[in-house]
This record gives sequence, structure tokens and C-alpha cells, in this order.
Amino acid sequence: MAQGTLYIVSAPSGAGKSSLIQALLKTQPLYDTQVSVSHTTRASRPGEHHGEHYFFVSKDEFRQMIEQDAFLEYAEVFGNYYGTSRATIKQVLSTGVDVFLDIDWQGAQQIRAQMPQARSIFILPPSKEELDRRLRGRGQDAEEVIAKRMAQAVAEMMHYAEYDYLIVNDDFDLALSDLKTIIRAERLRSSRQLLRHDALISKLLAD
Amino acid sequence: MAQGTLYIVSAPSGAGKSSLIQALLKTQPLYDTQVSVSHTTRASRPGEHHGEHYFFVSKDEFRQMIEQDAFLEYAEVFGNYYGTSRATIKQVLSTGVDVFLDIDWQGAQQIRAQMPQARSIFILPPSKEELDRRLRGRGQDAEEVIAKRMAQAVAEMMHYAEYDYLIVNDDFDLALSDLKTIIRAERLRSSRQLLRHDALISKLLAD
Repeated sequence: MAQGTLYIVSAPSGAGKSSLIQALLKTQPLYDTQVSVSHTTRASRPGEHHGEHYFFVSKDEFRQMIEQDAFLEYAEVFGNYYGTSRATIKQVLSTGVDVFLDIDWQGAQQIRAQMPQARSIFILPPSKEELDRRLRGRGQDAEEVIAKRMAQAVAEMMHYAEYDYLIVNDDFDLALSDLKTIIRAERLRSSRQLLRHDALISKLLAD
Repeated sequence: MAQGTLYIVSAPSGAGKSSLIQALLKTQPLYDTQVSVSHTTRASRPGEHHGEHYFFVSKDEFRQMIEQDAFLEYAEVFGNYYGTSRATIKQVLSTGVDVFLDIDWQGAQQIRAQMPQARSIFILPPSKEELDRRLRGRGQDAEEVIAKRMAQAVAEMMHYAEYDYLIVNDDFDLALSDLKTIIRAERLRSSRQLLRHDALISKLLAD
């Protein structure tokens, strides 16, 4: 069985990353592509299910997992922990499924250090003006809040060159097609094909 | 201007490599994708044009180019030289054009050693039976000639794992689509995209 590929996807807020990943998953069967489910210590919200949106755990459980080196990466955000379980990712990859991990540049660096075979994709917005428009949202936020969002977006985008692939999300359908192209090409790599076609290859090389 | 990518393509005889490359070039404009034109010392055949099918040179000229380290790879076959000029390849790549180089595993190893940024693709036939059928051609050759061809094909296929990508040419249209997918995905690599989108990136990262 060929191993799946772990895809790290990062982008500034407003680049359309979540919409792209959601659209991608709708077109791919579950036995083919899945999104990584994180562990978190924050409370579940109405409609969220354990194991589907997050694995909801207590802070004690989370800290114990940290001690056991159970996370590929984790971070504390506003007093709550969020992390990617090594065992969960490895289990899904071992079934040949590609896994998408929506994460910021810091998490991406942690993952890359531990799983150099992971592929990473950065998504950019089509223009500064469009990014500004998207970060303003409904236009009800103070200028300093917008400025802070823009500064965060720029800080994230500074790391684009650390990623294997770069997609500019100008036309949504084209960007989605770019994502699919990357997945298809990665499946054509010899390291994956030799497992998929091992019976054929053995026969071809036999005398 | 983004640099083009050099693609090394190898396959055993009978895998359909030449047909695939020809079909690919028909669908791609010349300013986008070209096939590498080799230097050779063999005489030109009717219909062959200098600079289009080959660069036809004398043995003295060829040997002088060898001394000047002008070839990325070269080989002597049945008393004639065939080689890939470093300057020709670099000039075309510098205009942003992707170049396809149809070559055997030995040539591929020489190119890889000198241009590690080149990508390599190996094409396999769909089955041993189909390979045998294709190597038999019109069925007018002696069994020992067929056996020799098969031995050469197996010797070439032994090197498939040295290539970045592996395509099984079962369905021709699917194999052609696989080739195009690889090219499109390689163009989405950050190293190429940052040159293509440098103006956008500068604006996005500016304060």
C-alpha cells in the first residue's frame, strides 16, 4: 500500500485557504483525501463533533500528550492548546490517504523538521487591495484592528518561499485546479508509483 | 523572467515515449515547451533540417566541443557521436521555455550530475506482454533479435527508480495528461512562481 502524502497549507487570512480546502475535499472521496483533525482544549461549539472537527481533550490530557511527544506541532492560542497528533496523521497516511493540514508558518516549520517528506503549499491573495478588502470584512472594525490584521498577514506572507508550491488565488476555480494538479503530480512520483505498480514492475523486470 | 525546467525523459523501446513527447509538443506552444535538439556527426537524412532535427557537425567539430566541455552529455553509437550542448539548453531555458530531452538512463545520469534542478520522468509500458508485442513490430525479425531488444528494454527499466516521476503508458491519453500534470505542477513550485509573480509579491510584502 502506497503511503499518503501530508500537505501543509498556509496563507494569510483573506487568501481564501479554508474555502479552497473545503472545495477540494468536496471533489475528492474520503478514501483519497482528508483534512487533518486537530486536538484542542477549547470547549466544543454547537454543531462541532469530537473526532470530526476536533478531538476535544482536557488541558491535563493535552499536557500529558506534550510530555509524551505525541504532537507533530502544537501551539497555545488565547489560553487554549491546539495540536496535531503524530499518531493520527501517521495512521491515516498509512492507509494511502493524502492528508491536508491547515496551519501557520510556525506550525509548518515544526512539521517540516519532523516529516521532511511532507509537501507544503502557500496561498497568496491576488492583490494588496483585494487582501485589504477581505481583511476589512463587513467594514465595522476600527482602522487599528484592520492595520493589525494586515501586519499579521504580511508577517505570514514573509514565509512563502519556505513552501514547495505557491498558488495565487486570483480566480477561485483556477486556484482549485492548481491544488488538484499538485496532488495528481505528487502521486506520479516514482516513490509512490513503485508501490502502486509493484506487481507490474516486478513482471517487467523479470527475465 | 522565470527559468524554464529541463525534463529528462527515458523509457525502454516500445513504451511509447516518442509518441507521447510528440503529442505533448503539439498541444503546447513553442514559447512554452520545446524538445532539445542534439548535435550529431551522422549524415542528415532526406527531410531533416539543421537546427530543427539535429545540429549536423563534423567529427572534428564534435571532438573539439568535447574538449571544450561543451556537452551536458554525449555518446558514441555505431561510430557516430550524439550530444546535448550545454549552451543550447541553457539559452532556451533562460527564455522561460521548458525543454524536453529524450535520452537513455546513462545520459540521464550525466545530466542529473550537472543540472540537479532538472526533473526526470520514466515511462513504462502497461505490461510485459504488450512490451513483447511492441518489440516484435511487424513480426519479421528473428527470435534472437527480439530477445536482445527485450534484454535492452529490461536493462533500461532497471533504472526507473532514479527518476522523479513514473508514468505507466497504458491509456495514451491518460499518460499524456499525466505528462501535462507534471509540467503544470512544476510551474507551481515557489522557485518558479516567485519570479513569475515578483511584482505581486513585492506589493503584498510592502508596508
